[in-house]
Amino acid sequence: MIKLLPEDIHIRPIGYVERLSAEENDRNRSLVSKIMVEKEFAKGLDSIEEWSHVYVIFWMHKISDEDKFLIHPGGGRNVGIFATRAPVHPNPIGLTLVELVKRRENTLWVRGLDALHGTPVLDIKPYPDWERGHLIVVTDFKVPMWLAKITK
Amino acid sequence: MIKLLPEDIHIRPIGYVERLSAEENDRNRSLVSKIMVEKEFAKGLDSIEEWSHVYVIFWMHKISDEDKFLIHPGGGRNVGIFATRAPVHPNPIGLTLVELVKRRENTLWVRGLDALHGTPVLDIKPYPDWERGHLIVVTDFKVPMWLAKITK
Repeated sequence: MIKLLPEDIHIRPIGYVERLSAEENDRNRSLVSKIMVEKEFAKGLDSIEEWSHVYVIFWMHKISDEDKFLIHPGGGRNVGIFATRAPVHPNPIGLTLVELVKRRENTLWVRGLDALHGTPVLDIKPYPDWERGHLIVVTDFKVPMWLAKITK
Repeated sequence: MIKLLPEDIHIRPIGYVERLSAEENDRNRSLVSKIMVEKEFAKGLDSIEEWSHVYVIFWMHKISDEDKFLIHPGGGRNVGIFATRAPVHPNPIGLTLVELVKRRENTLWVRGLDALHGTPVLDIKPYPDWERGHLIVVTDFKVPMWLAKITK
């Protein structure tokens, strides 16, 4: 299998997160923030308002790139970073499903984006996905016991 | 706002997709494929099998980087690329929610990954997300009319 090197992946922000203030609590998912999409990509947003929800994929530029593989989410033991939503990952990619409130030209207003002011946005995708005549909304799933402990 | 340049984003594959054969139809979501995570990251998978579903974020390395902003999904008119799941995006990032079948050391078996053999994987995140005592599973959403036409 041919392996790609980091320099083979050319990724560029398509826009940036703009919050009302840099002091705002970005963990409060009832807040609305803006995604300022680069003007050159504005056309790519056409008709996006026909969706009520979109995924935002972003680059958590303030996360340190320490190599940490286990994390303690509560519930009494360590689990691997890929088994949590902790931001410390080998690639600090954020993924959040947000409510699309409004679009005007190259600006999106979204509710629920847990990203800091100034966060580079890498991609936007509509929710849900679909395939062969049906929408892919998974409502039958299993989560770990530790999650039940911290969310109850 | 300080803007990041592409060279400021250091992204590296955490692993690669391995299919039974390169000729397999990667659009068939009932098929199981493997994610071979780099051995150095294997510890990060600990306890991942406690989740039944995970998001896989990958780099669609075979997608051309042409600048295309409108697409014709069926239904009679063009819509912006960010309003579709078409793979041609400024950053060809793939996002697929898959069923986690099995983990053994640094290998994951997943069902439903629509990625080619050899695709670099950038991140893996559990599904669903959660916040303050509740799981985030969006079942009340709006989709465009054109989607209803092509999925019916």
